[in-house]
Amino acid sequence: MPFEITNELIEQVKGYIQQEDDKAILAVLKDEHHADIAELLDELQLDEATYIIKLLESDKTSDVLMELDDDIREKILKNLSAKEIAEELEELDTDDAADMIAELPEERQERVISHIEDEAHVKDIVELLKYDENTAGGLMAKELVKVNENWDVLKCVREMRAQAENVTRVHSIYVVDNDNKLKGRLSLKDLLVTPTKAHISEVYIPKVDAVNVNDDVEDVALVMQKYDLEAIPVVDDENHLLGRITIDDIVDVIKEEAEKDYQLAAGITEDVEADDTIWQLTRARLPWLLIGMLGGIGAASIINGFQVILSKYVELIIFIPLIQATAGNVGVQSSAIVVQGLANNTIKGEIIHRLFKEFLLGLVNGLALAIIIFIVSKLVFHTEIHISFTIGIALITVIVNAALVGTFIPIFLDKRGIDPAVATGPFITTTNDVFGILIYFLIAKVVLGI
Amino acid sequence: MPFEITNELIEQVKGYIQQEDDKAILAVLKDEHHADIAELLDELQLDEATYIIKLLESDKTSDVLMELDDDIREKILKNLSAKEIAEELEELDTDDAADMIAELPEERQERVISHIEDEAHVKDIVELLKYDENTAGGLMAKELVKVNENWDVLKCVREMRAQAENVTRVHSIYVVDNDNKLKGRLSLKDLLVTPTKAHISEVYIPKVDAVNVNDDVEDVALVMQKYDLEAIPVVDDENHLLGRITIDDIVDVIKEEAEKDYQLAAGITEDVEADDTIWQLTRARLPWLLIGMLGGIGAASIINGFQVILSKYVELIIFIPLIQATAGNVGVQSSAIVVQGLANNTIKGEIIHRLFKEFLLGLVNGLALAIIIFIVSKLVFHTEIHISFTIGIALITVIVNAALVGTFIPIFLDKRGIDPAVATGPFITTTNDVFGILIYFLIAKVVLGI
Repeated sequence: MPFEITNELIEQVKGYIQQEDDKAILAVLKDEHHADIAELLDELQLDEATYIIKLLESDKTSDVLMELDDDIREKILKNLSAKEIAEELEELDTDDAADMIAELPEERQERVISHIEDEAHVKDIVELLKYDENTAGGLMAKELVKVNENWDVLKCVREMRAQAENVTRVHSIYVVDNDNKLKGRLSLKDLLVTPTKAHISEVYIPKVDAVNVNDDVEDVALVMQKYDLEAIPVVDDENHLLGRITIDDIVDVIKEEAEKDYQLAAGITEDVEADDTIWQLTRARLPWLLIGMLGGIGAASIINGFQVILSKYVELIIFIPLIQATAGNVGVQSSAIVVQGLANNTIKGEIIHRLFKEFLLGLVNGLALAIIIFIVSKLVFHTEIHISFTIGIALITVIVNAALVGTFIPIFLDKRGIDPAVATGPFITTTNDVFGILIYFLIAKVVLGI
Repeated sequence: MPFEITNELIEQVKGYIQQEDDKAILAVLKDEHHADIAELLDELQLDEATYIIKLLESDKTSDVLMELDDDIREKILKNLSAKEIAEELEELDTDDAADMIAELPEERQERVISHIEDEAHVKDIVELLKYDENTAGGLMAKELVKVNENWDVLKCVREMRAQAENVTRVHSIYVVDNDNKLKGRLSLKDLLVTPTKAHISEVYIPKVDAVNVNDDVEDVALVMQKYDLEAIPVVDDENHLLGRITIDDIVDVIKEEAEKDYQLAAGITEDVEADDTIWQLTRARLPWLLIGMLGGIGAASIINGFQVILSKYVELIIFIPLIQATAGNVGVQSSAIVVQGLANNTIKGEIIHRLFKEFLLGLVNGLALAIIIFIVSKLVFHTEIHISFTIGIALITVIVNAALVGTFIPIFLDKRGIDPAVATGPFITTTNDVFGILIYFLIAKVVLGI
């Protein structure tokens, strides 16, 4: 069902642009969804994409612009005049308009705003610009349908029709008092079956979920998910109705959060895609490799410090990779569970209980692996019994340690207000690599008595 | 705003249950959302939770049951009779009812179904049970509002009101022909402003996105996200309207997919939570540690095979952890980018281009790290120049190799129809560990000429 962006289509459109055959371009794009047009523009050269943006009506291009990748949008906006951008902004909902303006250089923002004719729209956008993008205020739109508790159903329907003109999708009708304080909601369905003379105050539902304008967007996402909401009103500390957040924006938040966490766990700093340039990808990846390298240098120093023991028991060398890999793997597992638990608010109780559980878990897993490696080292590598013993004991200790470190670091970061997801991936792995090797040689020293 | 599950509340409810003070329990839970009650039940003992489920009305408990963790729901359902379960199912939408039945043992399913009185409901549920849970059919509900293109607005509104009784939230009104084939949609908003005598065929929007009943749920999620849809109709191959999928279910799909991928990347087999038992967690984690251990044993064999070179150039030993860690980190980075690109459908073009890009990226990153380690090894560890050279060359080769392996494996798995996410985490790391060590010693052999 979705529109396919084929190579033929791309070539066809490129040809039309070269011939400046505007009619043909309009004919091809007439019925297409703005998300599809945005996908097509992604495949074109910058000047070709700009050509199409200037050609189409702003009620369509404004939505297309919002769907584009940030970096492509930024480049296209550079090619548009302040007046042209203002025309796009007039068509957008306040939340999208504010997001688009926020991406412009500061001195350009003012020029663009001065070209917007609708004063109420400007006022709303300027208000939204002042909220942090990670708060409910930064995500909400000013467009919503609200009615006064003192109206009757007839007036309410009349007012609603007028307001609905500006609102893409009506989810709930919010009920406010004379002071614009949120009192409750009406559902469209209820309104369909209520006599027209009834007073709103008699029929509205006084229970309505709302979020504070300063709430973190991730918390808003959790609330909307938990209660299966499609829209939620946003209020200030005095319960004045300021705006609303819709589920499509929350879907984007959930998706972006998940991708960010996934990338951090893999050692990639935020928001790169497969088709970014080698330079962008290097910038996102190299710092984490440097952290890993630092760990490697640390490990090298540790091994260097245990030259005496290594020269006497060379078999210890061959198990270095095993110790290191296991430490890394266990640490990543433990931290992943904690990071997800923190994100979903399912980590309850005291840290100490959590650590004790990981301790037990490490002991169970460590014992299982230690028994295997004890047997393998004896049978396959014919190590002496006290070397096999050393490796087994070291493995258990390393696993328990890695589980505790992997659990503790994210919880600690979270308590300090730092996103615990940064702790997963290379950071935890590297820490555990170094600890692992150190523990290995210390235990060897104790067991083998050197 | 959301209801807090405090320890006091839990103790209070536990007390009421002990005293069998049903009135007090009902008073506490009367106005609470089913998602909050489910959260409270999570904190109670099984018999206490069952007590509350039996006490509350089934229109409330059915929703509470759906919100519970699968394993808790399973246990509670075991404590309910087939008739009691049937009562819950009567209250649920068809999609939830089918999901709940599917969790029961097979011989129980039939007994429960035989107790459901509403025959249309039974028919819908039985139909839904036949679809795979990962397809649109497995996710859709039969509840929807549809009108015939041949009706007028008046009849349409009347029919809609009747249908709306059974539908929790009306998103779109679907328009079908006499043969139940999907023709288009009506929006509630449009209906508000259309004269009552108008014919539906004159006013409906003939363009409507739909998905096929056999489409993968992840593809449905991508379509709904791309077009910002709140509901999408589901059709069969002949375009007959079968059901609809709502965004709240898609939010759950997106979230679950993201969590599954995240856990796989961390080396955890599916769906464990921080509060699962040590045995459940071990079952999810130990297999991946065993894969890592296998790699460790492989690496041990390789090192064992290069004893001659190691005895001559002992400095090579101390850089084993560095080589291994870097190989692992690069592999995870590359695979994460590919896995995300595949999930979002943004990996375009030929594999060979993708591999070439990763090759270049590996070369750039590798060169940067090699220069650093060359200098560090000389200055800090005072290695001979040809050893430093060996380590640098080995590092570049290992990084390029890890980038290529990390890119190739997920693409290969995807082409074979296997979820590429299994390739991330320990699997890629282990492969690259072993390859990395092998490459390191082979290059040492060549450069140092042994």
